[in-house]
Amino acid sequence: MARIVQKYGGTSVGSIEKIKMVAERVIEACREGNQMVVVLSAMAGQTDGLIAMAKEINPDPDLRELDVLMSTGEQVSVALFAIALKSLGYEARSLLGFQAAIHTDDLYGKARIRDIEIDRITRNLDAGRIVIVAGFQGLNARGDITTLGRGGSDTTAVALAAALDADVCEILTDVDGVYTTDPNVYRKAQKMDFISYDEMLEMASMGAKVLEIRSVEFAKKFNVPIHVRSTFSKERGTMVIAEIKDMEKVAVSGVAYNKNEARITIRKVPDQPGVASRLFDPVFKAGIVVDMIVQNTSQDGFTDLTFTVPKGDFYKTMKLVSDVGKDVGAETVLGDEDIAKVSIIGVGMRVHAGVAKKMFSALAEKNINIIMISTSEIKISCIIEEKYTELAVRVLHDTFGLNHAKEEIL
Amino acid sequence: MARIVQKYGGTSVGSIEKIKMVAERVIEACREGNQMVVVLSAMAGQTDGLIAMAKEINPDPDLRELDVLMSTGEQVSVALFAIALKSLGYEARSLLGFQAAIHTDDLYGKARIRDIEIDRITRNLDAGRIVIVAGFQGLNARGDITTLGRGGSDTTAVALAAALDADVCEILTDVDGVYTTDPNVYRKAQKMDFISYDEMLEMASMGAKVLEIRSVEFAKKFNVPIHVRSTFSKERGTMVIAEIKDMEKVAVSGVAYNKNEARITIRKVPDQPGVASRLFDPVFKAGIVVDMIVQNTSQDGFTDLTFTVPKGDFYKTMKLVSDVGKDVGAETVLGDEDIAKVSIIGVGMRVHAGVAKKMFSALAEKNINIIMISTSEIKISCIIEEKYTELAVRVLHDTFGLNHAKEEIL
Repeated sequence: MARIVQKYGGTSVGSIEKIKMVAERVIEACREGNQMVVVLSAMAGQTDGLIAMAKEINPDPDLRELDVLMSTGEQVSVALFAIALKSLGYEARSLLGFQAAIHTDDLYGKARIRDIEIDRITRNLDAGRIVIVAGFQGLNARGDITTLGRGGSDTTAVALAAALDADVCEILTDVDGVYTTDPNVYRKAQKMDFISYDEMLEMASMGAKVLEIRSVEFAKKFNVPIHVRSTFSKERGTMVIAEIKDMEKVAVSGVAYNKNEARITIRKVPDQPGVASRLFDPVFKAGIVVDMIVQNTSQDGFTDLTFTVPKGDFYKTMKLVSDVGKDVGAETVLGDEDIAKVSIIGVGMRVHAGVAKKMFSALAEKNINIIMISTSEIKISCIIEEKYTELAVRVLHDTFGLNHAKEEIL
Repeated sequence: MARIVQKYGGTSVGSIEKIKMVAERVIEACREGNQMVVVLSAMAGQTDGLIAMAKEINPDPDLRELDVLMSTGEQVSVALFAIALKSLGYEARSLLGFQAAIHTDDLYGKARIRDIEIDRITRNLDAGRIVIVAGFQGLNARGDITTLGRGGSDTTAVALAAALDADVCEILTDVDGVYTTDPNVYRKAQKMDFISYDEMLEMASMGAKVLEIRSVEFAKKFNVPIHVRSTFSKERGTMVIAEIKDMEKVAVSGVAYNKNEARITIRKVPDQPGVASRLFDPVFKAGIVVDMIVQNTSQDGFTDLTFTVPKGDFYKTMKLVSDVGKDVGAETVLGDEDIAKVSIIGVGMRVHAGVAKKMFSALAEKNINIIMISTSEIKISCIIEEKYTELAVRVLHDTFGLNHAKEEIL
């Protein structure tokens, strides 16, 4: 008998028909002798509908109350799901954030889970019940409802799996696993059988939106195995697990891309201590997330500074940086929205030499100019012209031998 | 400074526009220096929509989970309302049933309030905040969400007013008060300035659906003054209060009617101990609410027994009674759906002689035949043919001098 936490996303419970279907699936796992904890998101579209109502009152609604409002979405899902399970003759109990004792910090709209008291859940499991927990929500120390931010149900599921010492946390979604790259961009993309937490973190942050990034961090911290698989098939999906030695046999596990960045370059910045700090200060204060930062070696006491921000923050950032650029005596500020980031990811990079050179050569062969480069231990990212994104992804996928499943490795 | 509990029904908060309008009204009362606790129902139509979803899964959905589902309706209202208040620059806090510590018994779908811990509410009031409480919902001793049944928000409001020792409980609705009779039936109906709890209970149970009957019982028990008034006007409405001596100056305060009853007569029932009990046993067991029961004096060892049930239960009751009628040796069972109940209500009946006679004469003068009569201390009801309902209401309204406002009395 295994203890399994399953999480179903909004599209998986997006209609009464789907709720009934998913209920059958949970029952099947239950019949196989497993203890089942099911975490649900709001039915697809619900959360957006609720937010729209709030924004009709105020474009910038109070965050505490917005959480009270949004948390009803998951409440509706778990109640309907419990009704479905009981209709099929199975004992079930829905638990909301406050009932499942999911304690969070105070950050409305993006709260972090502090701890979970599992007593009520385990009592129900021991009584033979299927426990259905509302994802995305918790309770802060003041007794207020909080929500965990977009994708928060993944975090709920992983945190519950950790707290309950579950054998696996299954994330059931509308894709059947994690792919070597976006199958919509390259039809030769392969479903991976395994991926390490660190690789998944890099993939997720690059826009491979299968798993919410915080849930992967959580899973890594508590070593919770995650199984990403399709709601609508029984096929094995992708296991996200701790790194094992064999993973390093492959240099590159996947190719990711992100078209949602814009580049800003500040030319001829006086190369003095504290200048970079002054330049970025207003940007950070505005809550804008800067991704890549590249600073060239100084020439004649001046340097160029280039960085990327989300496209949505581009104009705001240009304004902020232009103002402060003048103050520090920089020559000019340039911006470019038509860029994309292409990255190769793999824990094997650490042991395979020449991966970066191979990447740059492959891009050069197709006449794709590299605008910026940034590297980490298991990732190399290049900023290129946006129009070359798809071409770059395909070339790199071919170059690093990702076009065929590599089951032999693990 | 007064402490006021206001309750707004589903039509009063039925759209974002209305929520904004009601928020302005609450703020006005707040500006006048009052401590405000606002109880809200779900936006009109919401609860029915939620129930419909549940019934799509199972026509007879699990009651615990149905309460989890339905309680989201009020949760949405209070969150949106708090957002509206804060947008207008006022401090506000929404509290759900569990946060307002509204403890109920275990009866899902029709729970009764056991007690309310007011600490969190008073703390917020003392901090100068408007407190918005979700109506209709509470928490049982197991930590499950319960709902109080249709009209339960009225009960929440009155219970809160009692617990908080509020100066008044205002029920804001789409009518501007309690009328001497249904204004749709008789245009001469007058808005009452005052009505006693007991009279209101009789009016409410007769189908004057302004206030949920349990809330009136609650108000009577804890002597909470209720002010029924319009959401959309500043006019004074009707105060529902404890009986005061002056109320007895008028014999009759109102005329009520109910077309939702059907009559069943069992002819020639052997007049033996235990027969009535045997006849009603299957009816009560089926959960059918019997309203009036009349048994004539026995003749030759036989008696006739007549009673009324809701129209919706008529055929079921006929079947049950016909079966048991045969067993006890009754001659025949007759039924009639085309009846109505017309009642006059007033605490003054106790001191004014001849009220009943005056009622019967007035009906007789218009050739309205009385089929059954039933009396209580402050009410006389007659069953008549349904087609005469409106005529009877008007005649009685005229007869007992209700056509003019009687402000001089109180």
